[in-house]
Formats: sequence, structure tokens, C-alpha cells
Amino acid sequence: MLSLSELNNKVKEYFEAESFTGTPHQLYEPIDYTLAQGGKRIRPAMLLAATQMFGGDIETARYAAIGIETFHNFTLLHDDLMDKSPMRRGKPTVYRKWDENTAILSGDAMNILAWRYFLRTPHHNLHRILRTFEKTSMEICEGQQYDMNFETQNNVTIDEYMEMIRLKTAVMLGGALKIGALYADANDNDMELLYDFGIKIGLAFQLRDDLLDVYGDTATFGKQTGTDIRDNKKTYLLLSSINKASSQQKERLMQLFSVSDGDQTAKVKEVIDIYNALDIRSEVENAINNLHNEALTKLNTISQPDNNKAPLYELTQQLLNRQI
Amino acid sequence: MLSLSELNNKVKEYFEAESFTGTPHQLYEPIDYTLAQGGKRIRPAMLLAATQMFGGDIETARYAAIGIETFHNFTLLHDDLMDKSPMRRGKPTVYRKWDENTAILSGDAMNILAWRYFLRTPHHNLHRILRTFEKTSMEICEGQQYDMNFETQNNVTIDEYMEMIRLKTAVMLGGALKIGALYADANDNDMELLYDFGIKIGLAFQLRDDLLDVYGDTATFGKQTGTDIRDNKKTYLLLSSINKASSQQKERLMQLFSVSDGDQTAKVKEVIDIYNALDIRSEVENAINNLHNEALTKLNTISQPDNNKAPLYELTQQLLNRQI
Repeated sequence: MLSLSELNNKVKEYFEAESFTGTPHQLYEPIDYTLAQGGKRIRPAMLLAATQMFGGDIETARYAAIGIETFHNFTLLHDDLMDKSPMRRGKPTVYRKWDENTAILSGDAMNILAWRYFLRTPHHNLHRILRTFEKTSMEICEGQQYDMNFETQNNVTIDEYMEMIRLKTAVMLGGALKIGALYADANDNDMELLYDFGIKIGLAFQLRDDLLDVYGDTATFGKQTGTDIRDNKKTYLLLSSINKASSQQKERLMQLFSVSDGDQTAKVKEVIDIYNALDIRSEVENAINNLHNEALTKLNTISQPDNNKAPLYELTQQLLNRQI
Repeated sequence: MLSLSELNNKVKEYFEAESFTGTPHQLYEPIDYTLAQGGKRIRPAMLLAATQMFGGDIETARYAAIGIETFHNFTLLHDDLMDKSPMRRGKPTVYRKWDENTAILSGDAMNILAWRYFLRTPHHNLHRILRTFEKTSMEICEGQQYDMNFETQNNVTIDEYMEMIRLKTAVMLGGALKIGALYADANDNDMELLYDFGIKIGLAFQLRDDLLDVYGDTATFGKQTGTDIRDNKKTYLLLSSINKASSQQKERLMQLFSVSDGDQTAKVKEVIDIYNALDIRSEVENAINNLHNEALTKLNTISQPDNNKAPLYELTQQLLNRQI
């Protein structure tokens, strides 16, 4: 049984053994640039952890692990273009380093490349594996569309927000785990529990991300805090605040979240003051803890020895206990 | 055995039976808009013709036919965005009717939707079918990249041009035919002949398109003539002319193809005068005839009765005998 850090090393090794270059180089260089940057590579590690948990040989899932990370990086590449984000992992995004058309086309090619990897290893469950991947991929597009809709949509509810982050973030964790389990012929009941576990930690992970944007330690979190507030982004914190706020506080929040110029530092401070007055931090922490507990219940219930689940327990701890 | 027009009707019927709507509607409306517009739908008809030719049941290939057309329309959607083309099939393109981000994301979803269709019908050859589809898809991205490169690349050779149109246009015809044949368990030799037939008619089709842009009858061709010249597009006509031209003519052509303002009508006329002086029209017609003959030789050699090949003979005639 490989530990989480050994699984992470496997993923690293798999990626280092691949070449993402090709001709025309104008198409492949941005792909190589994106996939060589690394990142946390959580999804492929989860996929392999699931295969291993059910007694499968992780080598059979090797190319699916690369495929899922390739797809994830394709979504980041196109999201960065749509959001006009200048930087990713400390480097210029593809559309800025090259241009918009290069970002569109090399992203399209990466989407196809993900399928190429999935198709590399024949497996008796391949049809089901591919259907799971396809469904997950489409849901991620739906999640991204909801996220874009929310920019101009008033009265986004918490339920709508949770559904958006389920699609945009959580299903890919659930999908990676389910795919990993399919390589090991897990039974349907265990597979469903594992998928639900992935969804719950995906949701918890995103809520923690929302929280860290306001209450995170910049040095540990690796991003400047208050960015979501500056960008008028509808997060779990804002939507909970609007639910709890007095009509006066609510009006002020709406006002603050409608301006994008002026003194942004004062704006961030004032929003955080309202969050504090409403004790939003404990509300979000409670929601995260509930999701975390629900996730663990799912994982506990799976019919495999605890030892087989160890890497996923460890990963859950890492994802949900990032420093505040 | 269904005739070509019966196969075309099948394709039409298949598309009419599908719904491309979904939520969020902002994501699915542009997909429905694109796929409902029709177009010639040559690729799915070819795919079904290949299945039928080898004695297969075309219903087994129904969703692959929809999938290949969905993919083709995805490439048009993203190409129109990259080329900033305002109109397609007499209607505003997606990026103009909605916006650029909608075009990016709904295109991405269409790419995935193509896979969804391919995965709908289990088949003992599915793995090979998907690998053929994946390879073809990636080659189309490569072709599009070469096409974009050529905009700023000097000294494009005829060989480079033929390789570009092979990737951008021809492989999808070859791929559609090969996929259709796989649904009918054709033998490898026949499948290779059929694929090569598709490549040859794809190349011939594109050269005819280049020719029609200059010598086509506007009413029959459905597009304004001289567009490639106005857009400084490197076509087979231009590249052949540069090969045949005197140094003086060559210099003048280079000059004309470097300006995009000024009197475009005079420019078009002057370029056509040079083409005429060099008798480029017969040169292109010869190249098309050679490809056409090579294609027919491939089709003739396939070990099936002529009657089974009739729809493909008819389609070839239609594609290559559009009115000049």
C-alpha cells in the first residue's frame, strides 16, 4: 500500500516520463508549458488512491491519472482566458504569454489530449470509465457557465451557489475517485460512497477557499487576501452575510459589491467588518465541518480495511486543514 | 441499400430526433443554435455510407454520425471566433450573436458532447472507433494551427499547404469513413483504402474550393468571389502562381498579398489577371482531376460490390463537380 506522499511521487514520475511536445510547436508549446508547471495534482493522486484502495494495480490507471490532470489543466487554461486572469502558479497565463487564439486552440487540443490518455490503456471497464469522464467534463462546463452567470445575477441563493461549486469543483474529485475505483472493479455501492465522499470534500474545499480569501494568512495561503471582495465575487461568505444581515447591512453590502473602482482597501475592510459583526467566520467553519464529517462517514462506510483508505484520510486532512 | 439522398434524409431525421437544449440555457442555447442550422452534413452521411457499404446496420452508427457532425460544428464555432468571422450559413456566428466567452465555453461543451454521442452505443470495436476519432480530432487542431501560422509565414510551399489542408479538412472525411467501416467490421485493407479515398476527395474538395473562390459563379457557389484574395489568404492558386511566375510577377504578387487596404476590387482584378496569364486554372483543375482519379482507384479496389459503393460514387461526383 503506497502512502499519500508515495502516490504523489508516482504522479510526478508519470508526468516526468511524458513528453507533451509535438508539431506544429505553436500548438504544443503552450500545452507543455501548462502541464510542466505542476500544481498540486490532487486529482490524479486521488484517482490512484481509489484504484489502490480496492486492491487494483495503479499502473492500469496510470494514463487515466494523466488524462484527468490534463483535462483539469485545460479547464484552467480556458477559464484564465475567459476571466482574463494574468497569472497562474506564479507564471503568465497562456493567453498572456502567447495570445487569445493560441489559448483557445491549445486548450481545445488539451481537451482532446485528455481523451488520448484515457484511451491509451484498454480495460474491461473502459466504456464506463469514459462515460464517467464525459459526464464529469460536461458538468464542469455547466459549473463554469453558472459561475459566469452569477457575475451579473442578483439574488444568487446559497443553494444555487452550492450547486455551482458542486459542478465546477466537486464533481471532478468525485469523478476522479470513481474512475480510479472502476480500474479496480469496486462494487457499485462502494463506488457511490466514494463518489459522494469526493463531492463533500470538494464542496468543503471550495468553502475553505472562500474563507481563506478573507481570513487566510497570505504567506501560507499563497494568494493576496480580499481578492474575492475586490472582484465583487459572490462567495459563500457574502451570500451567508446577506441572509443574516439587517436590511441596513444588506443594502450596504449590495452597494459595496457593485463598485469596482475607488478605495478598494477601505472597501475590503468595511466588508470584513460586516462579516465579523455577523460572525460569518464560524458559520462557514460550521458548514465546512459538517461537510467534512459527512465526507468521513461516507469513507468510513466503504467495505475496505482502514489501512487501504489511509492516503484518502490523509489527503482530506491536508485539504481541509490548510492554515487559516 | 439506401441511396445517397436516403442517407442524407436519415441524417436529417437523426438530428431532428435529438434535443440539444439543457441547463444552464446560456451554455446549451448556442449549441442548439449551431446544430439546428443544418449545413451539408457530409461527414455523417459518409460515415453511414461506409457502414452500409460493408453490410453493417446503419442504426449501430447513428450516434457516431451525430457525434462526428457535432465535433465538426464545434471546430467551426471556435474557428469563427479565432478568425473573427461574422457570419456562418447566413446567420451571425456564436461569438457575435452572444459573446467571446460564450463561444469558448459552448464550443468546449460541444467537443465533449461529441464524445457523449460516440459513447452512447456500446460496440465491440468502440475502443478502435474512439481512437480513430481522437486521432482525427487532434489532427484537425494541428491543421488549424498550421493555417493560422501561414497567415504570417512567408515561403509556404505547396507541400506544406497540402499537408495543412490534409489535416484541417481531409482527415475528417477519411476518419468518418473509417469509423463507419469499423461499425461494420470491415477488414483492415478495405478500411485503409476507404480512408485514403476520403483523404483524396478531401484534398480535391479543398482545391476546388480555392478555385471556386476565384472562378466560381457567385449565385451557384453561394459566396462572393475573390474573398481569399481580399483576405491575403495563401491558397493553392497563389502558391502555384508563385512557383510559375517570372520574378517580376512574383514580386508583384507578394506586394499585392501584403496590403489589406486600398482598392480591393482593382487588387482582385490584377491578381486574377496574373493567374490567367499563368494559366493557373488548368493547373488546379489538373491537380483536382488527379486526386479525383486516385480517389476513385481506391474506391474501385475495395472488395465490395459496386452497388454497395453507389452512394459514395454519387457523393464524390457532387463534391467535385460543383458549378464553376
